[in-house]
Amino acid sequence: MSKIELFELCGAERDRVFSPYCWIVRYALAHKGLDYTTTPITFSEKEKIAFSGQKLVPVLKDGEQTISDSWDILHYLDKAYPDAPALFPNGDALARFVKHWAEGTLYGLLAPIVIMDIYNHIAPEDKAYFRQTREARFGMTLEEFAAKAETTKAQLGGALEPLRRRVKESAFLEGDAPTAADFIVLGPFLWARGVCEVKLLSDDDPVRAWRQRLFDAYQGLGLSTLGYAA
Amino acid sequence: MSKIELFELCGAERDRVFSPYCWIVRYALAHKGLDYTTTPITFSEKEKIAFSGQKLVPVLKDGEQTISDSWDILHYLDKAYPDAPALFPNGDALARFVKHWAEGTLYGLLAPIVIMDIYNHIAPEDKAYFRQTREARFGMTLEEFAAKAETTKAQLGGALEPLRRRVKESAFLEGDAPTAADFIVLGPFLWARGVCEVKLLSDDDPVRAWRQRLFDAYQGLGLSTLGYAA
Repeated sequence: MSKIELFELCGAERDRVFSPYCWIVRYALAHKGLDYTTTPITFSEKEKIAFSGQKLVPVLKDGEQTISDSWDILHYLDKAYPDAPALFPNGDALARFVKHWAEGTLYGLLAPIVIMDIYNHIAPEDKAYFRQTREARFGMTLEEFAAKAETTKAQLGGALEPLRRRVKESAFLEGDAPTAADFIVLGPFLWARGVCEVKLLSDDDPVRAWRQRLFDAYQGLGLSTLGYAA
Repeated sequence: MSKIELFELCGAERDRVFSPYCWIVRYALAHKGLDYTTTPITFSEKEKIAFSGQKLVPVLKDGEQTISDSWDILHYLDKAYPDAPALFPNGDALARFVKHWAEGTLYGLLAPIVIMDIYNHIAPEDKAYFRQTREARFGMTLEEFAAKAETTKAQLGGALEPLRRRVKESAFLEGDAPTAADFIVLGPFLWARGVCEVKLLSDDDPVRAWRQRLFDAYQGLGLSTLGYAA
């Protein structure tokens, strides 16, 4: 029996995991070669992570240790398992920049594209909560927010240019092997994959090839749950 | 007498250096604590770098060595002067991502803003060449290209978000001291500073404070030539 437990978000189906931050932790655990069990929870089942002292997934329980926040989990894993391949082999300073690029640029462009798909895939009992919290955050209805998708989809190709140029130089962001920087940028694409049928990347886009390399890595981890082949 | 010579681009005035790639090398030389002489050349004086076997500045001459291309120069300096502070203290893999972000995002937004200012500050004998080569590259007149400035200036604040978030965490991109990653991102801002009076960053923008820290570094290197205080 594994001593590591991952608590992560799921949709109406238990096997539809789409939270990008939970995915980052899944990839990190695979990268470290660690066995774990996963407990998928819906938005309405947050009492299952009450032991963590906060309300957000992912939560990692490793024996007596409980860690929430994917960034903290990544660092915990490098510290707790120093003999396994490093998640931050070159330190985390510029990986932070990559993280801010994903969070400050990518998520904002993808959010209108995927928002109604998320809504349509979450558990029925989660829908009112999801609509209320997101509409308060966006300052508009989900449908109004989704109407931006045409604009942001048109901007996505250009916004991905830094990633595109980098993955033309080497297979992964830090070289020949994936690292946390890749997982952090893959997160938004796994978010989309879980719920969304829109084709985000053209067949000849080097970003698509990089995404596929990561989907295929670790015994096809990125394709191992319910999702779409867009 | 210094054995290192930097050949760089200048405007109508010899002391108006605005090429971002030349500036990156200036900062790298200062970071390494190396003395050098500089030979500013106009676009029309490329015969002065014919010895380098190509037509672009910056060119660095270090004794018998001649290196062009700022990226190659950065690596040359780390290799030739390993005892001086490193330009790539954590390797160059993610610094490449930062470079692609600057080149794939920042320059494109700044170019329409600064293009006519560059044209107005270069030597009279350079103007026809500059107009011809840039109009061919852009597929439109300089004036048509400059008309995009209102749009790109409105996009700049949002595009800078990854940098903004990072420099709120630490003084420079890789921590407490500047590195090549900072110089690479500062390049576009020095490009603008040399020729352009438009205020690009609001007073309370953390990016502005980061830029000022770099302008002030190395005895005020970034403010040591002709330019504007925008």
